[in-house]
Amino acid sequence: MLFGTKPITMPNVKFYYFPVKALGESVRLLLAYGGQDFEDNRISEEDWPAFRPSTPFGQMPVLEIDGKAYAQSLALSRYLGRKYGLSGANAEEDLEIDQNVDFVNDVRAKAATVQYETDEKLKAKYHEDFTKNVYPELLEKLDEIIKKNNGHIAVGKLTWADFVFAGMFDYLKVMLQVPDLEKKYPSFQQVVDAVYSQPKLQTYIKNAPETEL
Amino acid sequence: MLFGTKPITMPNVKFYYFPVKALGESVRLLLAYGGQDFEDNRISEEDWPAFRPSTPFGQMPVLEIDGKAYAQSLALSRYLGRKYGLSGANAEEDLEIDQNVDFVNDVRAKAATVQYETDEKLKAKYHEDFTKNVYPELLEKLDEIIKKNNGHIAVGKLTWADFVFAGMFDYLKVMLQVPDLEKKYPSFQQVVDAVYSQPKLQTYIKNAPETEL
Repeated sequence: MLFGTKPITMPNVKFYYFPVKALGESVRLLLAYGGQDFEDNRISEEDWPAFRPSTPFGQMPVLEIDGKAYAQSLALSRYLGRKYGLSGANAEEDLEIDQNVDFVNDVRAKAATVQYETDEKLKAKYHEDFTKNVYPELLEKLDEIIKKNNGHIAVGKLTWADFVFAGMFDYLKVMLQVPDLEKKYPSFQQVVDAVYSQPKLQTYIKNAPETEL
Repeated sequence: MLFGTKPITMPNVKFYYFPVKALGESVRLLLAYGGQDFEDNRISEEDWPAFRPSTPFGQMPVLEIDGKAYAQSLALSRYLGRKYGLSGANAEEDLEIDQNVDFVNDVRAKAATVQYETDEKLKAKYHEDFTKNVYPELLEKLDEIIKKNNGHIAVGKLTWADFVFAGMFDYLKVMLQVPDLEKKYPSFQQVVDAVYSQPKLQTYIKNAPETEL
């Protein structure tokens, strides 16, 4: 599938990720925001083992730009954010964006240790423990950060950090096992809305397959 | 303690971390490399609970620049790397640095899930599983990356990515439970040496307390 309405700004852009939003959607959204045509390759679990050896680190997402493959969700998002005018105004603002993104990622990583635990008993134990002792402080802190930043993740305005959060929000809710997390934290929905309301994204959003995560 | 030989380049720089290298040493090394005088505050486990509420995310390391506190090890290292001429020559090189740092961080994070497991039986089980099924592929890949990059983590030359790896190498060895990891992967030692041999770091290195991690 090809997306975007502006002229092509990079030659031959191909994106590879599982058929979910999770850690890949920020890259898709940023490419669409930049008006960049790209191949949106959604690799099934079944096809992944055959594709895996050709990736830089044995991981997805992968973004191929004119034949060169790059990896790592946050690194890709930072790169595209810089390219499309969604980074900070100076080094200190970039530092604030980076630190807040890494904090969001800490929340995700904590929840992921539960999500990917294969022992069901242990998984339930971790979930209960984190829900009581870990998540509340992290989520309160994140809520506080967003409120202080005018409904954004950092520097009080729309940046690539918002795309990272918005892209992974459904995934985060599944992992935290709180389907209506935005009810308790309306600020989280504000960030998602700030991204998904961007006029440049409407064609992509309309055409993208619906996914739970 | 104050370190550095060049004139002060930022006013009032204070660094806060536990009395170990781990996730804080890259920041200390980069500040020393930049000739930046800084307060190297090493907060004991005992003093941490009292200090914690004043930090941006309830985490260390924290770097305070003229009264403003910033957090997150990698974000801080990227910022200082940019300041001191240790980042990429363009956006694509920065992307390569960022993706490789995030891969190094994946290895660290994987080992950390074992290190911080409090159930000793589970800890032993995870360690055995990862040592057999996870670490070898990650470490081989990292070895391959460093060899391809002329003894560095990315873009074939000294960057802040090398400081991140060098600063956490002892910590990584403890977590992987392989005290002589550099014997199997001499390339890892090459990165450490590339950093620790920098003339600008010698005063800091001579004066820094020795730590196991």
